[in-house]
Amino acid sequence: MKALTRLIFVDDNNEKFFGEGPYRLLRGVEQTGSLRATAMEMGMSYTKALKLITNAEKELGFKFTTRVVGGKCGGGSCLTDEGKAWLDKYEKFREACLEENKRLYHEYFGE
Amino acid sequence: MKALTRLIFVDDNNEKFFGEGPYRLLRGVEQTGSLRATAMEMGMSYTKALKLITNAEKELGFKFTTRVVGGKCGGGSCLTDEGKAWLDKYEKFREACLEENKRLYHEYFGE
Repeated sequence: MKALTRLIFVDDNNEKFFGEGPYRLLRGVEQTGSLRATAMEMGMSYTKALKLITNAEKELGFKFTTRVVGGKCGGGSCLTDEGKAWLDKYEKFREACLEENKRLYHEYFGE
Repeated sequence: MKALTRLIFVDDNNEKFFGEGPYRLLRGVEQTGSLRATAMEMGMSYTKALKLITNAEKELGFKFTTRVVGGKCGGGSCLTDEGKAWLDKYEKFREACLEENKRLYHEYFGE
């Protein structure tokens, strides 16, 4: 057996606005340049994906994605610098938590 | 905003077998002596509650509850000593994780 950790970001009303779903969607946009294609690959409707991202942007106060015509993305969506920086921070935070919780798991349930 | 942590125990096939649901059910049994009453209070069917507990017992290899007739519970269900000890350990582990993750949250997203 082992213990898994799920991290959820909530607003002041305890409403979830960020977690692995939005994270994976945004990393997908970064790789593919398309929120629609990423959502489809995750088995999520484009409408729901857009709602998740918009909701997170509203809470955090900045845009994660920007629409581009041509350029390095060849059209579609790109991550903003601010969005990318936040994702990197989230990733580091998550990794630190997972590592720490794993250590605690062994301390308490050591096998 | 803040980050919440959810801990999930999984077996070797990554199937969940313990988390806040079973934990609350068992603490309820400890207090009320009745799995049925606890499940009802949590808005869960007795069948589902029993399945969750049986499943956790199967994975962990010991019984959480024992049926008693009369005695200190006045009939109904009681926690076993082994079950109680495991719940206490789970609780301490969970608290340690939450505290550590809170500290890391402030480190990464300090406000």
